[in-house]
Amino acid sequence: MAVQTIDNTTEATPDTEPAFGPAVALSCRECGERVPLGPVFACQECFGPLEVAYDLPTGDPEALRKQIESGPANIWRYAPLLPVPADVVDKPNLNPGWTKLVKADNLARELGVTGGLHVKDDSGNPTHSFKDRVVAIALEAARTFGLKTLSCSSTGNLAGAVGAAAARAGFRSCVFIPHDLEAGKVVMAAVYGGELVGIEGNYDDVNRFCSELIGDPIGEDWGFVNVNLRPYYGEGSKTLAYEICEQLGWRLPDQIVIPIASGSQLTKIDKGLQELIKLGLVEEKPYKIYGAQAEGCSPVSAAFKAGHDVVRPVKPDTIAKSLAIGNPADGPYVLDIARRTGGAVEDVTDEQCVAAIKLLARTEGIFAETAGGVTVGVLKKLIETGQLDPALETVVLNTGDGLKTLDAVAPTTGPTAVIRPTLAAFREAGLA
Amino acid sequence: MAVQTIDNTTEATPDTEPAFGPAVALSCRECGERVPLGPVFACQECFGPLEVAYDLPTGDPEALRKQIESGPANIWRYAPLLPVPADVVDKPNLNPGWTKLVKADNLARELGVTGGLHVKDDSGNPTHSFKDRVVAIALEAARTFGLKTLSCSSTGNLAGAVGAAAARAGFRSCVFIPHDLEAGKVVMAAVYGGELVGIEGNYDDVNRFCSELIGDPIGEDWGFVNVNLRPYYGEGSKTLAYEICEQLGWRLPDQIVIPIASGSQLTKIDKGLQELIKLGLVEEKPYKIYGAQAEGCSPVSAAFKAGHDVVRPVKPDTIAKSLAIGNPADGPYVLDIARRTGGAVEDVTDEQCVAAIKLLARTEGIFAETAGGVTVGVLKKLIETGQLDPALETVVLNTGDGLKTLDAVAPTTGPTAVIRPTLAAFREAGLA
Repeated sequence: MAVQTIDNTTEATPDTEPAFGPAVALSCRECGERVPLGPVFACQECFGPLEVAYDLPTGDPEALRKQIESGPANIWRYAPLLPVPADVVDKPNLNPGWTKLVKADNLARELGVTGGLHVKDDSGNPTHSFKDRVVAIALEAARTFGLKTLSCSSTGNLAGAVGAAAARAGFRSCVFIPHDLEAGKVVMAAVYGGELVGIEGNYDDVNRFCSELIGDPIGEDWGFVNVNLRPYYGEGSKTLAYEICEQLGWRLPDQIVIPIASGSQLTKIDKGLQELIKLGLVEEKPYKIYGAQAEGCSPVSAAFKAGHDVVRPVKPDTIAKSLAIGNPADGPYVLDIARRTGGAVEDVTDEQCVAAIKLLARTEGIFAETAGGVTVGVLKKLIETGQLDPALETVVLNTGDGLKTLDAVAPTTGPTAVIRPTLAAFREAGLA
Repeated sequence: MAVQTIDNTTEATPDTEPAFGPAVALSCRECGERVPLGPVFACQECFGPLEVAYDLPTGDPEALRKQIESGPANIWRYAPLLPVPADVVDKPNLNPGWTKLVKADNLARELGVTGGLHVKDDSGNPTHSFKDRVVAIALEAARTFGLKTLSCSSTGNLAGAVGAAAARAGFRSCVFIPHDLEAGKVVMAAVYGGELVGIEGNYDDVNRFCSELIGDPIGEDWGFVNVNLRPYYGEGSKTLAYEICEQLGWRLPDQIVIPIASGSQLTKIDKGLQELIKLGLVEEKPYKIYGAQAEGCSPVSAAFKAGHDVVRPVKPDTIAKSLAIGNPADGPYVLDIARRTGGAVEDVTDEQCVAAIKLLARTEGIFAETAGGVTVGVLKKLIETGQLDPALETVVLNTGDGLKTLDAVAPTTGPTAVIRPTLAAFREAGLA
C-alpha cells in the first residue's frame, strides 16, 4: 500500500496482510467493551450492538486520496477504510458501488432547491439495490471465518443480493423472506439457485426466526449477513458516504436525505462522513442528516416528532416493503444523529411515495423503487414544511430499482393510447 | 483536446468545436456516396443505409489511450471516436456505459471454456439495457438538429431508454410499442411521463408505422432514434467494442458472441474493433464474431446455415421479444461478418434460453433478460457442436436485465418452501 498504516492487529504476523485490513476489533456501541474480530454481534457485557473498530491510515491525506482515486470503480477503492483484506479485489464477488451521483437540476427546479441537488442512484448496483454494498463486506467476513452457508432475513432486496453474491463466490445460500413479497423480488431471490424460504409472517417474524436459528446447532457454520455478520455488513453503507463526498470533489454536502428501515444505513453514512473528516479527506463543516419513512411504518419519525428518545415498535402497513421494519434496531441512534446534526425525520403516505417515484422519473429519468419514492417524497415534504433549507446543497438517496416494485405504479402507469398502425388512427387518438 | 485531430468538417469554423466531433459526413454503406451530416438515413442514390464517416484522431496511440483513460466512467470517455461534440459530458443525458466486464470463471468451468470467459454485462446501464448507449448518441444528434420530439419503435427496452433519456434532457417523447409487451417494459416505458402508444401488431408493424409517420408532416421535427437518427444511434454500439478491449487491457478478445435483433449491434461492434486496430489502440490479430438468435425468430441463423446471402423475413414467435425482429435490416451484413471472421450464427429454443438465464444466474450472480439467455445459450450450443473453440478467449454479451422478462423464468422459479417461523417447521421442510 502506498499509504502508511498503523498495524497493531493481533492476528497479523509481519509477513501477512491482515485479513480485515485496518479493522482491529469489535467494540460495543453502548459500553465500549472490545472483543476480537469474530462472527458475533452483541456485547457480552451489556448486549449492546458491536461495531468494527479501526486503526485507520494516518499520514498524508493527499496520498490516500490519490490511492483511492487510482483504485477500481467499485467499493474496493475504499479497501483501506473497510474491514477487508488489501487483496479483496482479486476474490470473486459482485464488485458493487461507485454508482452515479446524478446532478438533478430538473428535480431541483420542481422542488425549488437552489443550493444544488444530487441523487445518489444505487439502483445501478449489480442486483439494483444498495444491499450489494453491505453483502459484499459480510461475504468477505464469512470467507475469512470459514462459514459455509450465506443467509439473511430479508424484505426482498437483500435476498437477491445474498443469492447473487453467494452464487458468484461459491457459497451455499439459504435466505428467508416474508411469504407475501412482490413477485419480482421473489423471482430475483430464487433465480440464483440457492435455497429460498418463505416465512408465514412479516419481516419482524422472519428476523426473530433467524435469531432462533443462529442459536441452534443447525446454524453453526452459517453466516447471517444481517445477524452474526452484522458488524461487517453495516460497514458497507459507509461507502455511500465516501462515494458522495469523492464524487462531489472530496467535499461534504450540506445535507443528506436517507431512507430508514433498520436505521443502520443512516448511522453508517454518518460514521463514514466522520471518518472522512478525521482522515482529512474532506474539510470539516456542519452537515445535516434527514431520515425518511413511510407513514405506514414510521416509528422513528413518530419518536422524532414527539421528542422521544426511544422508538415504539409498530406493525408495518405500507407499499414500501423494503422499509417495512416495525422495530428498527438503530432507531435510537438515528434520532440522535438527526437531532445532533440539526436534521429531522419525516414520513409520507403511500400516495405521496407513488407521486414521488413518478416525479423523479419524469424529471431525471430515474425509476426508483418505493424506498426511493419515500425518500424523494420526504425531501419534498421537508421543503414544503420549512424543515429543510432549499438554499443548501442537498443529496437524496435512491436505494433501489423501480422494476422491483412495479405494483406500486402499475395501476396508474400505462400507454397513452392503443391504436391500429395507421396515421388516421394516430390522428384520431389526438396525438399528432 | 490533448490529441491532434484532422479537422476538415465543412460546418466548423476555426473558432468553434464541431457539433459532431470527429464525424465529417454520412456515407452510404452500399455505394459509398457521401452526404452532409443530417437527420437522414437512406442514400438518395441507391437507398442503401447511411452511416457516419469520420476523420478519426491521428498521432500517438499512447496519448489517445491516456486521454480516454482519464475520461469519465461512461461512454463519453470515447467522445473523440463518436459523432458528438467534445463538451457532450456537460449536457444533460443519462451517461450510460462503462458497464462491468465480468470474469466468468464459474460459467467457464461449467461450459468447458479454458481460454478465459468474460460476460459484458450491459444490465448495469441506467435503464438496464444496452439501448441507453445508442439512445445517448441519437439524443445528442437530435439536440444539434433542433428536433423537438424524441421517438422510436421498440420491442420494449428502447422505449424505456428513450423515455428516460428524453425526460432528463428536456425533450418531449412519443414512443411506439407492440401492444402485447411484458408488463415491466410497458410500465418502465410509461413511467417517465412521455407519450407511449401501443400498436395493434408486432414489431415489424410498429416499425412500418413509424416509417409512415416520418414521411408525414406530423413527424417533421421528430427524431426517431432508430429511423431518421439511425446513423448516429447505431454508433452507440461501437462503445461496447471499445469498452471490452479497454477492460481487457487494450487488447482484442479472440471471439465475441453477440445477440441479433436488427443485427446493427453486431455490425457496429465489428466496426468499433476495426477502428481500434486502425488507430493503433489495440494490436491487430484475428477475431471471430458469433451471432445469437432465438429459434422462434432466426432468419439470420437460417440464412447462415443454408449458405445464403439474403435473409428471408419470418414471423417471430419467441419469448425473447427484444430479439423478435422478423426482418432484420442488417442481416446481410451480419452474415458477411460472421463468415469473414470465421464465426457463425446459431439459435436456441425458448427452453434453452430459460435454462441459460438460470445457468448464468447460478454461476455468476448475473440475472439476464431473455436476450442474454439466448446469447449464453448459443455460446453453450456453439461449444457443444464444435463451432466455437473453448480454448480461445471468449466474450459473451448480456444486453438486458432479467427483471424486465420475469415471465420467462417465473413459472419455474420460486421459494424452496413456505413455512411457519419455527425451527420444527424448518426441520420438517428438510432444509436443516
